[in-house]
Amino acid sequence: MELSAYLHDKKIIIENTLKDICTSFVSTPGVLRDAMEYVLFSNGKKIRPILAIATCEAKGKSSDDLLPCFCALEMIHTYSLIHDDLPSLDNDDLRRGKPTCHKVFGEAIAIMAGDALLTEAFRVLSDARYTDRINPKITKQIIFEIAHAVGAEGMVGGQVMDVLYDGKEGSKNILNYIHLHKTGAFMRAAVRIGAVAGGAKARELKNLSKYGECIGLAFQVMDDILDAEGDEEIVGKKLKKDTNKQTYIKHYGILASRYKLEQLVDEAIKSITFLGENGKILKEIAQFIGNRVS
Amino acid sequence: MELSAYLHDKKIIIENTLKDICTSFVSTPGVLRDAMEYVLFSNGKKIRPILAIATCEAKGKSSDDLLPCFCALEMIHTYSLIHDDLPSLDNDDLRRGKPTCHKVFGEAIAIMAGDALLTEAFRVLSDARYTDRINPKITKQIIFEIAHAVGAEGMVGGQVMDVLYDGKEGSKNILNYIHLHKTGAFMRAAVRIGAVAGGAKARELKNLSKYGECIGLAFQVMDDILDAEGDEEIVGKKLKKDTNKQTYIKHYGILASRYKLEQLVDEAIKSITFLGENGKILKEIAQFIGNRVS
Repeated sequence: MELSAYLHDKKIIIENTLKDICTSFVSTPGVLRDAMEYVLFSNGKKIRPILAIATCEAKGKSSDDLLPCFCALEMIHTYSLIHDDLPSLDNDDLRRGKPTCHKVFGEAIAIMAGDALLTEAFRVLSDARYTDRINPKITKQIIFEIAHAVGAEGMVGGQVMDVLYDGKEGSKNILNYIHLHKTGAFMRAAVRIGAVAGGAKARELKNLSKYGECIGLAFQVMDDILDAEGDEEIVGKKLKKDTNKQTYIKHYGILASRYKLEQLVDEAIKSITFLGENGKILKEIAQFIGNRVS
Repeated sequence: MELSAYLHDKKIIIENTLKDICTSFVSTPGVLRDAMEYVLFSNGKKIRPILAIATCEAKGKSSDDLLPCFCALEMIHTYSLIHDDLPSLDNDDLRRGKPTCHKVFGEAIAIMAGDALLTEAFRVLSDARYTDRINPKITKQIIFEIAHAVGAEGMVGGQVMDVLYDGKEGSKNILNYIHLHKTGAFMRAAVRIGAVAGGAKARELKNLSKYGECIGLAFQVMDDILDAEGDEEIVGKKLKKDTNKQTYIKHYGILASRYKLEQLVDEAIKSITFLGENGKILKEIAQFIGNRVS
């Protein structure tokens, strides 16, 4: 199967699972549910759940029973977008070609929609109606991997540094901290929970972590390149707005950034040679991240 | 032991456990950790973890191994205070006699400190270093109870309605929804996880849930009474500011609110008669909530 067909198929499966999850919001105030769903179904790539699915399947295990858990990744990613876009943070008006959540629903509802998505992700991860076929030990490990990756020592920590160093000189070390924590840790966690669910052994988990970290960083380097050189129509958000931010372009220049991207994709692919033929999709995803235009 | 001594002892134990949890923030940006700790250690009552401890102990089980899990309740409560106080929500300048988090650290850091506390609560709940003596099935159930109580169908849902009906006519039904979801669900969850950890059977869990819901509502009715009649110095926040809000005072008047409070405390106590002498502390906590002045 072509990768594009694979990504398309999985995206539909993920969206259907997310729709099913949203049916559990029965007594939720309508405007809150609307705000959550507005961003959740705004045509994102769903790359984190896809990574978890592809990793789980690369280990030879069906991901059917784990779909709601993997979708929790997208709920958390969505919360992070809503909060990042807020006026006091990145103050973005446009996301995926549409007005951002606070532009449509106001700041208070946007903050609370983010809070609800983050919390409901952990509800889904622990809800017996979605997880009764999963060993509780695995469930606990998955929850830990995710929470650790997106908390103070992970994504939120990276986002804080990103905001603090907006408009400041910064350094390569600061840039590295931001990208490793803000994007890298969460992508790695997506791969790791797929690996844990797929029954990866310690050494395999280590190699898959490396893969996840490399493509997470590659994704962010590409984000910086797209901000500098991308097409606003295709990318779906305002570009050339990161000139005050700590980016690869700022600290390395465009050519070295492209070289860094290539290296990261190569290193990701090298980390999963142990998977042999089963690693085909993960390899293609790494290449796709190195070539994406939106 | 006097209840005041019990509450004091437990508060110290909880604060020490929270301090221990905070030592795990090693690569967290300093300002983020400062903002989290600023509110976490701002002399709150720690009523939610105390309820969990007291319920667990009422079932004859030591709470020692569960302290970090119970402290996660306080981390989540703290996140909710930080976000509730934000300019676009309740816009409060004072909390527990001190400037609110966004007044000290700015809005962006306050939003992210709340996000981090919420996420780290789930990290603590699933982190092997705190939970390896707990059956993973119990851990999973505790995580679900909490997430369900504070998400879209619980606390956040209640907070959304509270914000939406600020300055509106409202109704007793709306008031009931807000208080049940915003305060009641979380207090009930605190009691429920103590019960689950203590090995409560289905019927016991049902009775303890009733107890938790009643004292949660009683707590909120008392909050409304204190806002209308309390002493600002003692309560530690600006009062008489809820005149636009949906409160018991607005919809029932002060006398009927006091009567409602008495009824709720009585009902809470009646729900735990099955505990006999072991229910002494829980009974006294219910009475304390009905008589508190701050």
